[in-house]
Amino acid sequence: MLVSASCRRLLTRPALASRSFAASSARRMQILETVDAFRQARRALPATATLGLVPTMGGLHDGHMSLVQQARSSCDFVAASIFVNPAQFGPNEDYSKYPRTFEQDVALLEKQGVDLVFFPSAQEMYSPHHRCYVDPEGFDELVEGQCRKGHFRGVATVVSKLFNIVQPTHAFFGQKDAAQVVLIKRMVADLNIPVQINAVPIVREADGLALSTRNQYLSPVERKAACVLHRGLVHAEDLFQKAKKDGKSTINAAELRDVVREEYEREPLVTAIDYVSVGSKEAMQEVSEVDTVEGAIISVAVKLGQCRLIDNIVL
Amino acid sequence: MLVSASCRRLLTRPALASRSFAASSARRMQILETVDAFRQARRALPATATLGLVPTMGGLHDGHMSLVQQARSSCDFVAASIFVNPAQFGPNEDYSKYPRTFEQDVALLEKQGVDLVFFPSAQEMYSPHHRCYVDPEGFDELVEGQCRKGHFRGVATVVSKLFNIVQPTHAFFGQKDAAQVVLIKRMVADLNIPVQINAVPIVREADGLALSTRNQYLSPVERKAACVLHRGLVHAEDLFQKAKKDGKSTINAAELRDVVREEYEREPLVTAIDYVSVGSKEAMQEVSEVDTVEGAIISVAVKLGQCRLIDNIVL
Repeated sequence: MLVSASCRRLLTRPALASRSFAASSARRMQILETVDAFRQARRALPATATLGLVPTMGGLHDGHMSLVQQARSSCDFVAASIFVNPAQFGPNEDYSKYPRTFEQDVALLEKQGVDLVFFPSAQEMYSPHHRCYVDPEGFDELVEGQCRKGHFRGVATVVSKLFNIVQPTHAFFGQKDAAQVVLIKRMVADLNIPVQINAVPIVREADGLALSTRNQYLSPVERKAACVLHRGLVHAEDLFQKAKKDGKSTINAAELRDVVREEYEREPLVTAIDYVSVGSKEAMQEVSEVDTVEGAIISVAVKLGQCRLIDNIVL
Repeated sequence: MLVSASCRRLLTRPALASRSFAASSARRMQILETVDAFRQARRALPATATLGLVPTMGGLHDGHMSLVQQARSSCDFVAASIFVNPAQFGPNEDYSKYPRTFEQDVALLEKQGVDLVFFPSAQEMYSPHHRCYVDPEGFDELVEGQCRKGHFRGVATVVSKLFNIVQPTHAFFGQKDAAQVVLIKRMVADLNIPVQINAVPIVREADGLALSTRNQYLSPVERKAACVLHRGLVHAEDLFQKAKKDGKSTINAAELRDVVREEYEREPLVTAIDYVSVGSKEAMQEVSEVDTVEGAIISVAVKLGQCRLIDNIVL
């Protein structure tokens, strides 16, 4: 595949609404930059075919690829979107410096046999007259929502838009953003969106660090320390499994939180612990006791230097 | 068509998910009470056929029928929904006493050759876990929104749900709810919903009263007085046309408002004037001067006894 010249033109957003790349397989991957162009490509697919969507903000890594592979193995066609969504970033967050690695992303997606890539501009997605948002009541009260007011409204809105544009039969989200998975499932149920949501397990480095686009912000020494996130979660899981093995019906959530927090406090490069949350699997709402049969989800957000990382483990 | 026995059973919501009525035409009208049943009926339609949706809260009259006729003349298939949406009623509004005239509604729809009727229960539409709403920012600041806080959020949410369930290619709304038409067009644009929105002109009685389900709340003497709503609007239109004829480029909005308001104040049965608004055609936002070429929309809400009536005129 020839990426360089044509893709560089794409990055500067030429008048072209769509561009095709020769793929190694018989099918060619199309990159569509406007809603109209995407819809036209979508209409060209057989009406009865399944289409899996992997929504991304680019900066693709093996975590995203596991979503694409899951989509590829379960759907007739696969679409991916690359859109850094301004509506889900707070005023003091990293929207403008969020990694944009389009050429590399396209190469990865094509290698995985993706059929359609939706790559719109912010102007294409949000008109100056934009007023309507999908508002997930109560999600700002979840720990991740408290730290990022309006974040989930931005996510729900853009995913709703992507679903309406792409019209997928299936969509694939990483379990890494655990609250996001809960949100999207809630939205699909509440608004009767005809898409089947699939949560795909977290992909980790050898030392346990969950893959994340933001990992590239880490200095080498921070990167080395970052495996503390997962280590803390594993300690909590061990505690939970021990309680289960000992025949206990519940374990105190504070105990689980403490063991995670203690681990993070031992790491000098951790500059802040935004939260260590023990929540229900369905709604991520804080629990005080964890039923050893029902389980729970422990989710964390931690700052290493300037970089905010999240992780979670399902008990 | 035999209505009585079978429809009475429907009104008590039996376990049946769908019920067919013998129609005078070759096609039979189906009444679907669950999302799953409707989806199944929808899938049975040819994939390339157009489907027009007329969303209603029942209490059908000739105004609704003009929407159905418009849908019938421009689409291959027609669906109507009958659902009194709790989310768009305020705590002090008439949700529980809103007219429910299902048998009569079904007879009217069948006569017009409607193919599918979606008639869900409130439980079917809103689960106890419902959290996600479509929030149209700023609409609560429009005059109709100020009078009915949260009304437009309820409308946007239910219409978004109905679009996802019914999957129409076209949808038909009455111009009588002028702000609602603006809202739905805004929502469809903002969330990229693939439905073409059609606004259908107001249907009026011989004396000018706009047809409304709520007209049946009027006592005979109030009914007679109710034509004042339209009469006031016509006076304002006369004033606008005169200014235009006189070669004026603008006319003061306050002048237009005053002539309407004076007419309403002369009618002793008018117990309150909620608003007389002169707004832009696109966004219903108040204007101080009306351009005689661009025009505007005058919209009013007035109480006659206990009954709140709205009307509007497009200049």
